[in-house]
Amino acid sequence: MMRIVVTGANGFIGRKLVRALLDQPSLSGADGAPVPLSDLRLFDVVPPEVPAGAADGPVTVRCMAGDLSDPAALGAVMNGGVDVVFHLAAVVSAQAEEDFGLGMRVNFDATRALLDACRQSAPDGAARLVFTSSVAVFGGDLPEVVRDDTAPVPQSSYGVQKAMGELLVQDYARRGFVDGRTVRLPTIVVRPGPPNKAASTFASSIIREPLNGEDAVCPVPAETGLFVSSPRRIVANLIQAATLPAARFGRDRTVMLPGLSVTVAEMIKALRAEAGDGAVARIRFQDDPRVRAIVASWPARFETARATALGFQADASFAEVIRAFVEDEMGAPHKDPVS
Amino acid sequence: MMRIVVTGANGFIGRKLVRALLDQPSLSGADGAPVPLSDLRLFDVVPPEVPAGAADGPVTVRCMAGDLSDPAALGAVMNGGVDVVFHLAAVVSAQAEEDFGLGMRVNFDATRALLDACRQSAPDGAARLVFTSSVAVFGGDLPEVVRDDTAPVPQSSYGVQKAMGELLVQDYARRGFVDGRTVRLPTIVVRPGPPNKAASTFASSIIREPLNGEDAVCPVPAETGLFVSSPRRIVANLIQAATLPAARFGRDRTVMLPGLSVTVAEMIKALRAEAGDGAVARIRFQDDPRVRAIVASWPARFETARATALGFQADASFAEVIRAFVEDEMGAPHKDPVS
Ligand SMILES: NC(=O)c1ccc[n+]([C@@H]2O[C@H](COP(=O)([O-])OP(=O)(O)OC[C@H]3O[C@@H](n4cnc5c(N)ncnc54)[C@H](O)[C@@H]3O)[C@@H](O)[C@H]2O)c1
Ligand SMILES: NC(=O)c1ccc[n+]([C@@H]2O[C@H](COP(=O)([O-])OP(=O)(O)OC[C@H]3O[C@@H](n4cnc5c(N)ncnc54)[C@H](O)[C@@H]3O)[C@@H](O)[C@H]2O)c1
Repeated sequence: MMRIVVTGANGFIGRKLVRALLDQPSLSGADGAPVPLSDLRLFDVVPPEVPAGAADGPVTVRCMAGDLSDPAALGAVMNGGVDVVFHLAAVVSAQAEEDFGLGMRVNFDATRALLDACRQSAPDGAARLVFTSSVAVFGGDLPEVVRDDTAPVPQSSYGVQKAMGELLVQDYARRGFVDGRTVRLPTIVVRPGPPNKAASTFASSIIREPLNGEDAVCPVPAETGLFVSSPRRIVANLIQAATLPAARFGRDRTVMLPGLSVTVAEMIKALRAEAGDGAVARIRFQDDPRVRAIVASWPARFETARATALGFQADASFAEVIRAFVEDEMGAPHKDPVS
Repeated sequence: MMRIVVTGANGFIGRKLVRALLDQPSLSGADGAPVPLSDLRLFDVVPPEVPAGAADGPVTVRCMAGDLSDPAALGAVMNGGVDVVFHLAAVVSAQAEEDFGLGMRVNFDATRALLDACRQSAPDGAARLVFTSSVAVFGGDLPEVVRDDTAPVPQSSYGVQKAMGELLVQDYARRGFVDGRTVRLPTIVVRPGPPNKAASTFASSIIREPLNGEDAVCPVPAETGLFVSSPRRIVANLIQAATLPAARFGRDRTVMLPGLSVTVAEMIKALRAEAGDGAVARIRFQDDPRVRAIVASWPARFETARATALGFQADASFAEVIRAFVEDEMGAPHKDPVS
């Protein structure tokens, strides 16, 4: 009997994670043996919907709308106890930069309240919590390759709030309050849907739009590097984070996830191989100095030895990233990646 | 006209800092030119006393007793505005480990409230705040030499709370809310007074007790390394942190202070040179596995290139550390250090 809470369940990753949990409804328990999911609670400030087909499945799925920073809403979603929390709810980077108070309240204070609620709900400290942090914790004068022991010097309020959340998870885990685990996520591509205001949006656009027969603009030079992961890989890594035995983390509960270091040129080369010259012809380079500067400040190369040792995985190639998008978002049949 | 608040003014460093501020009652202002101190507010939960002679001096010294985590007490000390805050109030490591809620409330929440109060009191972001962090932010699997870009992985709640405070200072400074600066302090020796419960207490005892003609026990092997600073040097570095132009910090508001990497054997050698064989004969080695393990987990070697570039200084030698203690605490006449 496994009770799971997903915060931010209506978000991009939340929906995909919920789908994956329902497709294979068991997680390993404290002793490593698989335990069937019994109770899945989907929490989001934007009311989540019960996924198609879930009503007939073996898992009780409940959708709960509420603001995580509201104690009553938090109390309601924790009611009945919990074994595993996937904590995805967050206000995104641009929003946290624009509204400092909102970012502190949702990204930090609500994370702290959620940890306290987990501690209260399982006083033996057995509640597992997976916290999703970000490469945005890094900034300033970075080395060429960011290592597992590189100090975070965030250059955004979002990055600071995520870094503080990591520290809380670290301490709650060390003290035995909550079995917390933090994963730092690479930039996720290819996102479905229309472009958004994020500086990284072009990284999805230059693949997604050509595949859909539409034009795309690339605001950065072809040699620009990025550190990316497919959403499919992220979901698998979140489940890995939730099921690893606690002892495997040693004295550090934060793990930078593996990803692919690719340049825009390499992304386009993979697109050409998958979808042909016509697709690539849809991409027009048009320099945007503002976007170029932001993207250039992001670390593009990571050495993620710890994550690899812990069984986390990166996409094998950017071709695989493109194929995951085609299969998951464009209705193509799922094929096992060519390895 | 310079208004200064010292939180934790009744503590070990607070008293010495206040003494130094009164001895040379000016600090450089925003344009680098010296500004005379006008108003010095000493705040501590243990009621501070007006230092001897201060009543007759040019600076208005006010002593204010209160708990920094009490909004009314915080409001009272901020009343009248402030130019520079030295934020030293904290519950120490052992206490924060024993009482998690207390540590969070004083070391983190009160730091946040103080930053918010500074932001409110000087909406142009001009209030300067010096936050005292610690080598306790470091832990886990550390490199041989801790660098400026080594990631903090704290192994104590005190370390986590200090690391979260650093991140807040970083973000408030980056956003222009408060001109915050964090210094990470080495282990401070030689402390006056009786031994306390800190694992580091022996590092002061083995110097202080022999100088006072008393016996001392050393619970760790002679080859044990430590990273230390005299309180005199710390006070000078706190004033340096408060007076550096903000731009000098670049994109990182946290600085690990320089210190001396010494072994216990080197400390004793310096004691012999300063005070003779008789003093050294007072020290008895008696292994304490618990203390040995704690002390061995502390990083003993640091590369503090940034601090040096910013004009922070370490003691020239351990002999100088001993002499500072003899002059400041045993009434010996102050001599300029032999350099
Ligand atoms: N997508 C990425 O590239 C990326 C990279 C690094 C980290 N992350 C992190 O991963 C997590 C999930 O990312 P995503 O791409 O799915 O983001 P998303 O914005 O699509 O989803 C976040 C969800 O949280 C919800 N939410 C916001 N405030 C809330 C509140 N107060 N109470 C309850 N729910 C609230 C939103 O409604 C949204 O559905 C986030 O924590 C994000 O910071 C994402
Ligand atoms: N001494 C060291 O070796 C060392 C090393 C690293 C960092 N630090 C930091 O430097 C600062 C000063 O250290 P110290 O050695 O003088 O410590 P200390 O314990 O002597 O002084 C701290 C002072 O803070 C006061 N205080 C505690 N809680 C308070 C509250 N809620 N409101 C108001 N005042 C409160 C205490 O009464 C005390 O006078 C602290 O922040 C400490 O964490 C010290």
